[in-house]
Amino acid sequence: MSITSDVTRTIADLRDEVCALHSQLTHYELVIWTAGNVSARVPGRELMVIKPSGADYASLTAEDMVVCDLHGNLVDGALNPSSDTAAHAYVYRHMPEVGGVVHTHSTYATAWAARGEPIPCVLTMIADEFGGEIPVGPFALIGDDSIGRGIVEALRGSRSPAVLMRNHGPFTIGRTARDAVKAAVMVEDVARTVHISRQLGIPPSLDAADVTALFERYQNVYGQPGHLEETQENPR
Amino acid sequence: MSITSDVTRTIADLRDEVCALHSQLTHYELVIWTAGNVSARVPGRELMVIKPSGADYASLTAEDMVVCDLHGNLVDGALNPSSDTAAHAYVYRHMPEVGGVVHTHSTYATAWAARGEPIPCVLTMIADEFGGEIPVGPFALIGDDSIGRGIVEALRGSRSPAVLMRNHGPFTIGRTARDAVKAAVMVEDVARTVHISRQLGIPPSLDAADVTALFERYQNVYGQPGHLEETQENPR
Amino acid sequence: MSITSDVTRTIADLRDEVCALHSQLTHYELVIWTAGNVSARVPGRELMVIKPSGADYASLTAEDMVVCDLHGNLVDGALNPSSDTAAHAYVYRHMPEVGGVVHTHSTYATAWAARGEPIPCVLTMIADEFGGEIPVGPFALIGDDSIGRGIVEALRGSRSPAVLMRNHGPFTIGRTARDAVKAAVMVEDVARTVHISRQLGIPPSLDAADVTALFERYQNVYGQPGHLEETQENPR
Amino acid sequence: MSITSDVTRTIADLRDEVCALHSQLTHYELVIWTAGNVSARVPGRELMVIKPSGADYASLTAEDMVVCDLHGNLVDGALNPSSDTAAHAYVYRHMPEVGGVVHTHSTYATAWAARGEPIPCVLTMIADEFGGEIPVGPFALIGDDSIGRGIVEALRGSRSPAVLMRNHGPFTIGRTARDAVKAAVMVEDVARTVHISRQLGIPPSLDAADVTALFERYQNVYGQPGHLEETQENPR
Repeated sequence: MSITSDVTRTIADLRDEVCALHSQLTHYELVIWTAGNVSARVPGRELMVIKPSGADYASLTAEDMVVCDLHGNLVDGALNPSSDTAAHAYVYRHMPEVGGVVHTHSTYATAWAARGEPIPCVLTMIADEFGGEIPVGPFALIGDDSIGRGIVEALRGSRSPAVLMRNHGPFTIGRTARDAVKAAVMVEDVARTVHISRQLGIPPSLDAADVTALFERYQNVYGQPGHLEETQENPR
Repeated sequence: MSITSDVTRTIADLRDEVCALHSQLTHYELVIWTAGNVSARVPGRELMVIKPSGADYASLTAEDMVVCDLHGNLVDGALNPSSDTAAHAYVYRHMPEVGGVVHTHSTYATAWAARGEPIPCVLTMIADEFGGEIPVGPFALIGDDSIGRGIVEALRGSRSPAVLMRNHGPFTIGRTARDAVKAAVMVEDVARTVHISRQLGIPPSLDAADVTALFERYQNVYGQPGHLEETQENPR
Repeated sequence: MSITSDVTRTIADLRDEVCALHSQLTHYELVIWTAGNVSARVPGRELMVIKPSGADYASLTAEDMVVCDLHGNLVDGALNPSSDTAAHAYVYRHMPEVGGVVHTHSTYATAWAARGEPIPCVLTMIADEFGGEIPVGPFALIGDDSIGRGIVEALRGSRSPAVLMRNHGPFTIGRTARDAVKAAVMVEDVARTVHISRQLGIPPSLDAADVTALFERYQNVYGQPGHLEETQENPR
Repeated sequence: MSITSDVTRTIADLRDEVCALHSQLTHYELVIWTAGNVSARVPGRELMVIKPSGADYASLTAEDMVVCDLHGNLVDGALNPSSDTAAHAYVYRHMPEVGGVVHTHSTYATAWAARGEPIPCVLTMIADEFGGEIPVGPFALIGDDSIGRGIVEALRGSRSPAVLMRNHGPFTIGRTARDAVKAAVMVEDVARTVHISRQLGIPPSLDAADVTALFERYQNVYGQPGHLEETQENPR
């Protein structure tokens, strides 16, 4: 597959955006050293933009970002793609509504993942952002479609944009790469708060009807009108 | 309601101040992404200045701050007001001594709120700042006066400027917006310290007479004379 | 008491040093808002330099530092001295070897203090720096010599430069103000590490003979020769 | 032993590199005050470059780094070598494949070390980086070869580049000093995540065959081809 001139501009913009979003992962301390990655789908094409493997966050540039097809094959770029590219690609192939995927080993979300325990919906913020408990996906070895399939199966049974992959860490999705980064920030935040709350007792879960009311209101009313359609640069 | 020229200057100053105070929320890591908000009452007017909904902390400007009446209706500003505006407005309507309100989802305070457990008065700093245990308010859905009413009822039975709203997070009040931000910083700090202390045992509570002695001394003696009357820029 | 010209220079230098050392308290996140204070004895004089009450760390200047006698009376300076001045003064009156005192409400040290539990000597770093367990002092109200007396009594029965005052927080001492700040940094670090270790079991204490061997070696061999005599600016 | 002109350049480069790597220890909050140290072997010579004793991180310069022989004797430099030099030297004498050694008292790794408990292999990241559980070494007093011998014995029975020395803290090794710093960052990260996971249950360990598959893949496939041979400046 070659990249025709009409998508060259889009891909350049996505390289800038995906590179910039990685700095949110370090800002919120979701990643260390070279771990973690963000990708974005190239709209209308069977392509994605993703971080190269083993690249240092401090020196990451937009040019370092690589373009792959949706089977994880390198299409454009000087570096090897992230070792998690196959998992991102699987998600894009099977969830057409997804425009961005993020993977981290953020501390508290990974701690829940290590026990294989979903994060219960005990906070209004969890209802708002995740629409219920945050689900657990299976243990899967890297190297084939196992991780991607596990992510998709877990997310399809849930309103949550985040899944905790057993003994591994969180993957998040979004309509855009920025939304997926937001979900990665939020899943770590609620994983930490609920963990701490649980250390001294059992916080009660919200009623299912309240969870739905909060989720629907937040998804439709919060933020500024027309915002998401206008631009990805303004956060929700 | 229109804004007459004699309050234009005051509102411009409050927009600057409220915008600047939001940076304290990020400095002390009380908020992530776009969560959390600070408001200030416009003295002598049925108006308040508050953060817009879903706005990014990194790019927040004084001009972004919106002016609402004390029923939460937008009076001036290009953006939608915070989704918590109704709760702030309710507090201003029912607590005339309050000049500032802050809401965060800070980790440790929210962890106590999730369990619905007040923070016991086991530190001299809690006696100084809160005058006793930090109370819990009811679970309430967003969308009407329930949250505001819960805040006011919990605070009226207490000397504390902070309340932990069940399954939600802390709200704090102050004579000024700066005082309310200080209370938001302090409630998270003592929530964390007492949580950690409780992990390995039960710290004993202070005697009620000692709590009152510490509270009254701190409220009257600490800091510099005439300070609060002079300026809001100097911290207490 | 008036300040004669021959100590003017020394006091100016100590104002610079004490002001600069406060930035270490914020760097290591030992203090929030205006809490915490550092003081230095004026060598050979019945005077000390200390932070003013309720002053903001971000805007603290050397000129803000106030000079008090060793009963806590203001001798020079435009602002009120720290509300903890009496405790610092008591230490200087009763421990002539002490040149600096620090007080914070740092999280983990205060959590041990809230339970009234000494920090056991389970790490070589604790043996090196504290020469044994870190002791607890009594609960004492502010306003007279109770806090100072409690600090001095607890420290005299110990090799530790740090004491955990019950339901309050740590006080540390040193031959210089810098040494006292180092002790404040170290007590929080070991309070945190031992707390975390204790969450999942009981770490064994070091043998008393090993503690003494480590303490004596560290106090005499570590660092650079002649260093402490030369200058306070180079850390040990 | 004197330093001939043909290694002068190499040593100057290693002084730069070792100095710069210390800033990673503070960036990742693995050290406080003057604790912790990084060293690098001088390739093909019985020499190492290491941090001086008791030196402040904020003012550390490449010139401050000292050169020692592999028995810890000072060969070049104005300052005393780190008090841990003998332990580094022992490792270089007995493990010829090691090019860098790091020692910290990082909080969570030291908390496991205080209990004398290995970190179980419950995360894919632990399998990737450490190839199994992270072992514990004996308690040893400073002053002779005990610490070095304990490190080498523990590491020889393991694929792990990190060892938790009882009641003391972690030591890590690597083919280069940068690899040893990476291992110091990673051991603290997994020590924290597994600690937190264990607070609310027992995370299951990975199967031994899965651990080996992950370790071998990561050590051979991750990152960019030819990268490690090319340069030490690019992170893996």
